[in-house]
Amino acid sequence: MPSYQAPVDEVLFLLNDVFHIERHNNLPGFADASPDVVEAILTEAGKLAAEVLTPLNRSGDIEGCTRHDDGRVTTPKGFREAYAAIIAGGWIGISAPAELGGQGLPATLTVAVNEFLASANLAFSMYPGLVQGAIAAILRHGTDVQKKTYLPKMIEGVWAGTMNLTEPHCGTDLGLLRTKAVKQPDGSYKITGTKIFISGGEQDLTENIVHLVLARIEGAPEGTKGISLFIVPKVLVNADGSLGARNGVSCGSIEHKMGIHANSTCVMNYDNATGFLIGEENRGLPAMFTMMNEARLGVGLQGLAMSEVAYQNAAAYAKERLQGRALSGPKFPDKPADPIIVHPDVRRTLLTIKAINEAGRALVLWTALQGDISHRSADEKESKAADDAMGLLTPVVKGVMTDLGFANTVAAQQMLGGHGYIAEWGMEQFVRDARIPMIYEGANGIQALDLVGRKLPKDGGRALQAFFAEVQSFLAAHKDDAAMKAYAAPLNTALGHLQQATMWFVQNAMAKPDNAGAGATDFMHLFGLVALGYMWARIVKAANEKLASGANGDAERYKNKLITARFFMERLLPETGAHLARIQSGAESTMAMPVEGF
Amino acid sequence: MPSYQAPVDEVLFLLNDVFHIERHNNLPGFADASPDVVEAILTEAGKLAAEVLTPLNRSGDIEGCTRHDDGRVTTPKGFREAYAAIIAGGWIGISAPAELGGQGLPATLTVAVNEFLASANLAFSMYPGLVQGAIAAILRHGTDVQKKTYLPKMIEGVWAGTMNLTEPHCGTDLGLLRTKAVKQPDGSYKITGTKIFISGGEQDLTENIVHLVLARIEGAPEGTKGISLFIVPKVLVNADGSLGARNGVSCGSIEHKMGIHANSTCVMNYDNATGFLIGEENRGLPAMFTMMNEARLGVGLQGLAMSEVAYQNAAAYAKERLQGRALSGPKFPDKPADPIIVHPDVRRTLLTIKAINEAGRALVLWTALQGDISHRSADEKESKAADDAMGLLTPVVKGVMTDLGFANTVAAQQMLGGHGYIAEWGMEQFVRDARIPMIYEGANGIQALDLVGRKLPKDGGRALQAFFAEVQSFLAAHKDDAAMKAYAAPLNTALGHLQQATMWFVQNAMAKPDNAGAGATDFMHLFGLVALGYMWARIVKAANEKLASGANGDAERYKNKLITARFFMERLLPETGAHLARIQSGAESTMAMPVEGF
Repeated sequence: MPSYQAPVDEVLFLLNDVFHIERHNNLPGFADASPDVVEAILTEAGKLAAEVLTPLNRSGDIEGCTRHDDGRVTTPKGFREAYAAIIAGGWIGISAPAELGGQGLPATLTVAVNEFLASANLAFSMYPGLVQGAIAAILRHGTDVQKKTYLPKMIEGVWAGTMNLTEPHCGTDLGLLRTKAVKQPDGSYKITGTKIFISGGEQDLTENIVHLVLARIEGAPEGTKGISLFIVPKVLVNADGSLGARNGVSCGSIEHKMGIHANSTCVMNYDNATGFLIGEENRGLPAMFTMMNEARLGVGLQGLAMSEVAYQNAAAYAKERLQGRALSGPKFPDKPADPIIVHPDVRRTLLTIKAINEAGRALVLWTALQGDISHRSADEKESKAADDAMGLLTPVVKGVMTDLGFANTVAAQQMLGGHGYIAEWGMEQFVRDARIPMIYEGANGIQALDLVGRKLPKDGGRALQAFFAEVQSFLAAHKDDAAMKAYAAPLNTALGHLQQATMWFVQNAMAKPDNAGAGATDFMHLFGLVALGYMWARIVKAANEKLASGANGDAERYKNKLITARFFMERLLPETGAHLARIQSGAESTMAMPVEGF
Repeated sequence: MPSYQAPVDEVLFLLNDVFHIERHNNLPGFADASPDVVEAILTEAGKLAAEVLTPLNRSGDIEGCTRHDDGRVTTPKGFREAYAAIIAGGWIGISAPAELGGQGLPATLTVAVNEFLASANLAFSMYPGLVQGAIAAILRHGTDVQKKTYLPKMIEGVWAGTMNLTEPHCGTDLGLLRTKAVKQPDGSYKITGTKIFISGGEQDLTENIVHLVLARIEGAPEGTKGISLFIVPKVLVNADGSLGARNGVSCGSIEHKMGIHANSTCVMNYDNATGFLIGEENRGLPAMFTMMNEARLGVGLQGLAMSEVAYQNAAAYAKERLQGRALSGPKFPDKPADPIIVHPDVRRTLLTIKAINEAGRALVLWTALQGDISHRSADEKESKAADDAMGLLTPVVKGVMTDLGFANTVAAQQMLGGHGYIAEWGMEQFVRDARIPMIYEGANGIQALDLVGRKLPKDGGRALQAFFAEVQSFLAAHKDDAAMKAYAAPLNTALGHLQQATMWFVQNAMAKPDNAGAGATDFMHLFGLVALGYMWARIVKAANEKLASGANGDAERYKNKLITARFFMERLLPETGAHLARIQSGAESTMAMPVEGF
């Protein structure tokens, strides 16, 4: 049975020592998030994750969800009690507005907490996670009445929320969607259509479910410009806030999936269901897109979360499993064999995962912090710059952290040999669960296109130039710092590769967009490596400062950061050159093959 | 429901036009394998795979194997009939000696056939595949009486065979094994112990199962030098060849696994079971190792097989699924959207898989051919050179083709978006099944160590030098061939990286073996890319010859080979530089982390 311990100290180090979150105490909610408060919250979240959610992970996978003939869905044993703990702890609303029942704390803190929940039990964590997404949508685009009607219950957690985008014939290309909305005399709409892949579409955890549904109003333009967003509650809400009649929406079936068995993935049938427009008619897609960054950041976080829990279990196994002897001679001659952690290839594997996780967590929190600044800063320039950064980094976090997170989970499974393939050890479930974040909320190929086709050229490349400037100014500021040299030099090389790749797109992709398309995934991963490298440089700086100031007797910990950083620079960063070469080879061989040749 | 079509034409092209297998007609059995005979056999095998085994793949995964209270194991519905077809077609023995009931054809042909069976139904194909492994062991090390007693029935297929190595506390490190053998007055042994992860350990497909079991004879030396190999039949065989009493071996349980559900992975309990020594006392491990190359080649082949079937289904989906528009403008303006194969990132993904599969198939067949030459050639020098090549290439094929095969299967799954994650589409099963070849028959980290620690230094590096010489002489022979230049130049660069990496090991790993261990996996993959690049160069040569001679109206096919080869050189081969950089970074950062730091 796998175990999990939340990396509370890691998050505290990043927030306090690397990003100095106290510098943002001028932003609403940040001053309340004092180091003590943050530590208490993270510790509590870590306990919930380890003690309540982890024990339900494997049993939930085995039992899965059950749909009954009447359309009800039962979640696995223990999930109702665990969800009650989520409600009791107020975990859904820690960053929601205080006036609606939340605690108003930074969203960055919610992100940190959500990593723990996802590591402990990805399938479970999706239920509260999706509520947060729906809350964000209604907050941003709902009317005051809609906010008052739905948000307090959702923030409390007693009502859930879902996102309904995909239909059988359309996922990525939402312009094709067919679900219809017919306006009623009272201003509401009747919604009819079928949605698929709806996570938590039906469950037995909450007394109501607020479905957010994309549909086309009768007579609306074709394509993406004729799509509107609706609130369709499972149970209609009376004027006094009490629950009324059951709405015309039901779960038609649940999917049999590779993983996240404990999350109900539903086919949802809307049959003249009553819906309420959010935002403007035909502006549903832009409304969805304004929340896309947060949602995608949350999925990138899941990649990290799976990588972390898989790492912890692989490292524990490698310290215990006795097999073979160290290449340099027995390390434990009194034992029948050495623990496999003596082997360089095992260490290489574990350090690869560790190096990505620690910088990945930094990247996720840093991106979340940009989101907080963009939403909460009164300084327009600061807010805009943060919004730029978050928009640019989001597809990178989503695409790269889920690709690497999955690869890391597979590598961690490999450390257990045959035992990794057996269900009872739990590693194979991590792999099956870690596979979905690469797909949902925009498959990773779409993230790469979003980065290259949308985020790069936006505002004349302003966001990317700002990122370059930030990394370069960090490098310039430390160019005489001997302790930084071993890290700064490879980062500088990698940044150069990223800049060359950008230049190549500028020169070759305007006239021939296929050149951008063929290099998009490589560019995303090249960018990801540079961003992770930059995070390592900042971690090294903070670790050096800690060591210089005595490190409170915790010197080993900071020295280990330096080792891991060096490993990252030597072993992972060289990949940037290969990405650049692939990008610069262009689209010719990619596009030359006739369709029948595939 | 996924489909499969055996790539018969691909195999014929490789055997006839790339490797000119007819040049080996002096070897026993090769002249019988005329192009017509080979085509007929492959066509028949392809039919069996597509029509009998493919339809049982998903149902077998869902149903799995069942162990009954009395220790019997039932395989999924349809498996008994399918196995009867394997027996009826004589598929197990096509390369076995004619005097024992086989057809004596090249083992290379068996390898080609086995790819088809594994693509169609990996879990099923393991049953006959393991019989072939056990046949090889008895052929190589058994006495005449043992051969006559067991082999005709095994070659016919009515008796199965298994390999029993792993125990709960030992997998890679067989020196730790505890299963005991006690010599009896009649020369037989009583075997007692527990073996785990025994594929096909019990089943309902054959009337007997011949277990090959590693055990320690009472009083034998500790470690790997005290291990002997035994035949332990499930049902004892009377002197007249009829079946006698049930032996003291039984299936204690079957494992719940990530994939290959339809193959029974058993815990086998040996309780004073009667066993018969094969080969010499205490020489069991070397005996196992003489068959290891074939077994590992067979597992590498499984990586290719899964990659191929996943590719076929992803390509079919990409041609049909309408979603979005081409970056360069609509390609099918009359349809609601273009098929996703217009997108460069989709093509990049599919071409990556295709480029690895086509060269991977060449590499597997070429390696198998070396095995045939080494076993069948009367020319000692030729035989030894082929044995060198096979020994060198085997860990590369096993490690690289299963790593890439899994990565490709995951990439193919990604092409289906959310549908790839849903069981009914079949892609997620391919991923779960494709995961095991990276683990069994020596986890891939062990393959890398075998390559770097054993195969490289063996005989003063003779095998590797011969490989270098072969590739270099190919490059030299075509250095004035303008049609080869675009392929030869990148191959030459990659070969240079491999040679530099080798030199780095020579200079840095003698004194510090950790330097070899830390670079082993990168070296294996670097070698794999060079070997695949060499295969592409040879395929290009054959394709050019075909095109020059008119190509029998099939010019498109050979032109597509040139496109895929170019894609390989531009997009996959540049990775060799990153592997070299990682190797040359050495073991320092890998070994510096204290155990508690993980």
